[in-house]
Amino acid sequence: MDKIPVGVLGASGYAGRELCALIEGHPRLELAFATANEQRGATVRIRGRELTYVSSEDARLGDAELVFSALPHGASKEWVERVRSAGARAVDLSADLRPGNGCEGIVYGLTELTRSLVAGAEVVANPGCYPTSILIALAPLFASNLVADGATLVANSASGVTGAGNSPKRELLFAEISEDYRAYGVGNEHRHTKEMRATLESWQTNAELVFTPHLLPVARGILSTITVPLSRKLDDPLSPWRDVYAGEPFIEIAPTPPSLREVAHRNVVRISATPVANTRAPMLLVTSAIDNLMKGAAGQAVQNANLMLGLDETAGLPA
Amino acid sequence: MDKIPVGVLGASGYAGRELCALIEGHPRLELAFATANEQRGATVRIRGRELTYVSSEDARLGDAELVFSALPHGASKEWVERVRSAGARAVDLSADLRPGNGCEGIVYGLTELTRSLVAGAEVVANPGCYPTSILIALAPLFASNLVADGATLVANSASGVTGAGNSPKRELLFAEISEDYRAYGVGNEHRHTKEMRATLESWQTNAELVFTPHLLPVARGILSTITVPLSRKLDDPLSPWRDVYAGEPFIEIAPTPPSLREVAHRNVVRISATPVANTRAPMLLVTSAIDNLMKGAAGQAVQNANLMLGLDETAGLPA
Amino acid sequence: MDKIPVGVLGASGYAGRELCALIEGHPRLELAFATANEQRGATVRIRGRELTYVSSEDARLGDAELVFSALPHGASKEWVERVRSAGARAVDLSADLRPGNGCEGIVYGLTELTRSLVAGAEVVANPGCYPTSILIALAPLFASNLVADGATLVANSASGVTGAGNSPKRELLFAEISEDYRAYGVGNEHRHTKEMRATLESWQTNAELVFTPHLLPVARGILSTITVPLSRKLDDPLSPWRDVYAGEPFIEIAPTPPSLREVAHRNVVRISATPVANTRAPMLLVTSAIDNLMKGAAGQAVQNANLMLGLDETAGLPA
Amino acid sequence: MDKIPVGVLGASGYAGRELCALIEGHPRLELAFATANEQRGATVRIRGRELTYVSSEDARLGDAELVFSALPHGASKEWVERVRSAGARAVDLSADLRPGNGCEGIVYGLTELTRSLVAGAEVVANPGCYPTSILIALAPLFASNLVADGATLVANSASGVTGAGNSPKRELLFAEISEDYRAYGVGNEHRHTKEMRATLESWQTNAELVFTPHLLPVARGILSTITVPLSRKLDDPLSPWRDVYAGEPFIEIAPTPPSLREVAHRNVVRISATPVANTRAPMLLVTSAIDNLMKGAAGQAVQNANLMLGLDETAGLPA
Repeated sequence: MDKIPVGVLGASGYAGRELCALIEGHPRLELAFATANEQRGATVRIRGRELTYVSSEDARLGDAELVFSALPHGASKEWVERVRSAGARAVDLSADLRPGNGCEGIVYGLTELTRSLVAGAEVVANPGCYPTSILIALAPLFASNLVADGATLVANSASGVTGAGNSPKRELLFAEISEDYRAYGVGNEHRHTKEMRATLESWQTNAELVFTPHLLPVARGILSTITVPLSRKLDDPLSPWRDVYAGEPFIEIAPTPPSLREVAHRNVVRISATPVANTRAPMLLVTSAIDNLMKGAAGQAVQNANLMLGLDETAGLPA
Repeated sequence: MDKIPVGVLGASGYAGRELCALIEGHPRLELAFATANEQRGATVRIRGRELTYVSSEDARLGDAELVFSALPHGASKEWVERVRSAGARAVDLSADLRPGNGCEGIVYGLTELTRSLVAGAEVVANPGCYPTSILIALAPLFASNLVADGATLVANSASGVTGAGNSPKRELLFAEISEDYRAYGVGNEHRHTKEMRATLESWQTNAELVFTPHLLPVARGILSTITVPLSRKLDDPLSPWRDVYAGEPFIEIAPTPPSLREVAHRNVVRISATPVANTRAPMLLVTSAIDNLMKGAAGQAVQNANLMLGLDETAGLPA
Repeated sequence: MDKIPVGVLGASGYAGRELCALIEGHPRLELAFATANEQRGATVRIRGRELTYVSSEDARLGDAELVFSALPHGASKEWVERVRSAGARAVDLSADLRPGNGCEGIVYGLTELTRSLVAGAEVVANPGCYPTSILIALAPLFASNLVADGATLVANSASGVTGAGNSPKRELLFAEISEDYRAYGVGNEHRHTKEMRATLESWQTNAELVFTPHLLPVARGILSTITVPLSRKLDDPLSPWRDVYAGEPFIEIAPTPPSLREVAHRNVVRISATPVANTRAPMLLVTSAIDNLMKGAAGQAVQNANLMLGLDETAGLPA
Repeated sequence: MDKIPVGVLGASGYAGRELCALIEGHPRLELAFATANEQRGATVRIRGRELTYVSSEDARLGDAELVFSALPHGASKEWVERVRSAGARAVDLSADLRPGNGCEGIVYGLTELTRSLVAGAEVVANPGCYPTSILIALAPLFASNLVADGATLVANSASGVTGAGNSPKRELLFAEISEDYRAYGVGNEHRHTKEMRATLESWQTNAELVFTPHLLPVARGILSTITVPLSRKLDDPLSPWRDVYAGEPFIEIAPTPPSLREVAHRNVVRISATPVANTRAPMLLVTSAIDNLMKGAAGQAVQNANLMLGLDETAGLPA
């Protein structure tokens, strides 16, 4: 079968490189172009094939049927419009078009939750890494009306440093990160908070969220630990996920809390849940692990692209 | 001035070795004996001095004025009794005598909160590492009546692997821990939960706690991230700590969330707090960092011993 | 096409698990049994499939056409004999049958150098990880008569900790290995020295070797740095490798020194060479990187098995 | 006793910060100024004291009796001259004034080997980190005439990433360094090679050196592994070091190869040596570990300054 040409804007960052690698290994996609303005002209090896970066201005957007944008937040939106003008579809990995950012009517690609919308979309806003780990974990509880009325959900997440990108910053040097750990964006100030709050609103819940991200001395992975006040006790704490996610190829329901190693380099969300002992009202402790560059970025982007292009949703994705 | 002889039971673990190092560097203490049953007869270098382990049975407990027990949970209690019978005072680093473990009338050595009791005690139960990071951070909010009635406090903590001890276990091998991160003891099942709940009860609050520990790929350090529903809004979110801990040599109040590197090898609790935006009721995000082997174990034990022996509380302790 | 049944003895160690994963992903092999005496009855997930360990005694050796033994040194030899008695071929990953260990007539599976012998062998001794990185890097220099007469080759290697196995040992705990680095087996005392010396002898050279292994705070990978006194100056320092290894699917010749990340999870040897400036006699600095669990163990074992079974040499192997 | 004012030029790098910390903890020195052009005006906490960086142009050089320059290579030389013009003595941590860089008549501060010269010097060139680990380890063999005539010494060193400075560079990001290891400056091309060769020449030996540095995924520390062809066999391989370094406070002679953890945060060189088995001519394997920021930079600089200022050589230095 002929391969479908796709392009990558912003291909030299961690998510961009992961995208290129997934495309190179994809049975039905081929890379039409990969842009990296600062490194234009440079050649890199991805999965054994040589790839030469071009500038975004030089990319022939119309050569691609679909373009992934891994450009920085703020810069991406304009390029998605250019992609559209050139007649190609787009998956935007930046925050520009996500819920809570003032963009209306863009399909939000939490694939397992918005599959049918994604399949028909011209443009998909690919979710943030933290929202992917948290919202996919929480959705079955809301779907089953299990979250207590007026509940405050407390989500603590810890991310590997590839989540902070590969721009050279002193605070991301090995000698600064190793043997360290810290919270950042505290007080609901992280960019992803509004993305999650807007999504929760769209689910018509009055639950509120307190979200605190942390920076881990690991290269990749996100673990989210979430307390959820329940509307009623659950006999089988994993049943909401088993019900809602039955047959999902990229959801794993685990009897014990997941760890980053279990999901590394895989396009999955691994979820567990445990009742909290000794609380007055029933409460659930939900844990959720993803690879931030796979299901948290490039993997989910390809999963969405597969749907948009009418391909097998799992094509080219390591589960 | 003459030095005061002290002993260490269980000196080959991480906390025990840190204790020996602090004692070797202490201006007023000297090591009468250090026990390590499995390694008895072995010689180690601590701060340039050679130290030969004896078995606990062979230690002359009465030679010491005060004995630190870093023996395993369960085994320690009996040895504290033997120490008492030999006429020495004791600081017990195990969980055996801490609140919530069925022992009445033992002074709990959260030094900044129980200083006067510690000074007169014959036996002090040295707090767990997680409780130290959480309870010292929370106390000023309770002291100032700032915690909302019936509040649920959610405490997520992450600890370096020395917290798990140095017994050889497969899951603690470098190749298993590096690039990994996970929650454990989920659902309020960790041993330290009851220690904290019992202490909260003694503070006569009806607040409840959800505690989830995590294992970090770092050698040492604990960071706790705690959401606290407040009874009223705070103009200055750090004022409760400034009021209660003014002049404390081992408490640091930080304008931004603390990190593990900032407290490594130091006997301090570094605390910050930020209001949480966009919640219906006022809520505070409290972060607290300690070195689990120093303020979380050996350092606080020496701080307590200094008080018990009438020495300067800061003697021999790196702040 | 029907799959060929193979077995794995000692499947719970790092090499054994990597073997099982390669077999599960192999287009022509299937796993007949996997043994792990201490964990017999335990079920693990390998590439999404569940696998239950049996004891070696309970394994039906004859059900397999070929058996990989990843049993400990000393214990493996006897089991290779049992495998032979049961009518199956064997690839032995232990040191028992390698050169220098008193076993005559066993084919040594440095695949690129002994391909034709491997193809016809009933039993293959799979090389050690360090010897693989060093001997495959050095062979072209000997083949081209480029090593100075009577030369002393100095090989310094550094290995990730999976090379030390996954038995729980205190010195391999995360808190001991992180931020550390050390030499071991100094003075030509490491087991692999005699394996390499015996192989060099078989190459009929009078060159001698000084080998010093080191332990790295990484999970996987070996980098070897080797100084080689040359018989004559080389105009193109990479030409010996280009000549000897032309077309080899698992050899990479690199213009700059290879790094561990470049070979992680890949069955390759990545080699570079640079003339040493300012020496009286010509000298070459050769660097060589492998993944110790892939080309240094399980990957090369499958490469050898592919040849023994008449399959495509690259089947099931990530290059 | 009054404290002696000293200054630090280039105080925001890793070596500069270590210098400031040593000075803050020094019983006889006090910090007159600390410069950091890019961060001028910024305040940092060093050992609990606040320190505000000034630009080098604004530093009143004459206020100091001695100035440490941790400025970049190339920029330092001019500032040492300015320091001299202002009437202060100088310890230069850059490579500008070291042997092999075209500067004649500057005292090279390998303290244990050049103590009397350092004591009377106005300017001292502080040795590079690699040369410190290698030359202090090798000197006793040359002093005792134990190195074979015309020998080629092969020195492989591995350094933690603080050795590469704290300028933000992509290749030093945590996500690039962790789980990686590589050689660099191969072929005797590293800057420190000529520093070592010039020093060996000054020792009037015809021995030649092949030096290969490597980059380790640790924050600090250097381990050097050196093969030395001997002029004769040694009955006691450690005797040369015991003879030459008897009573040295900062030299440790170890029965087994040293590791980075053993020297972290300490101003020592820890050295071991083992005969190499099975070589035609006698050969010794020497291993040497230092903390690159202490004995490899700031610690040795303070050690030299102590001598220049007539203070106890060990003052303010952790051994």
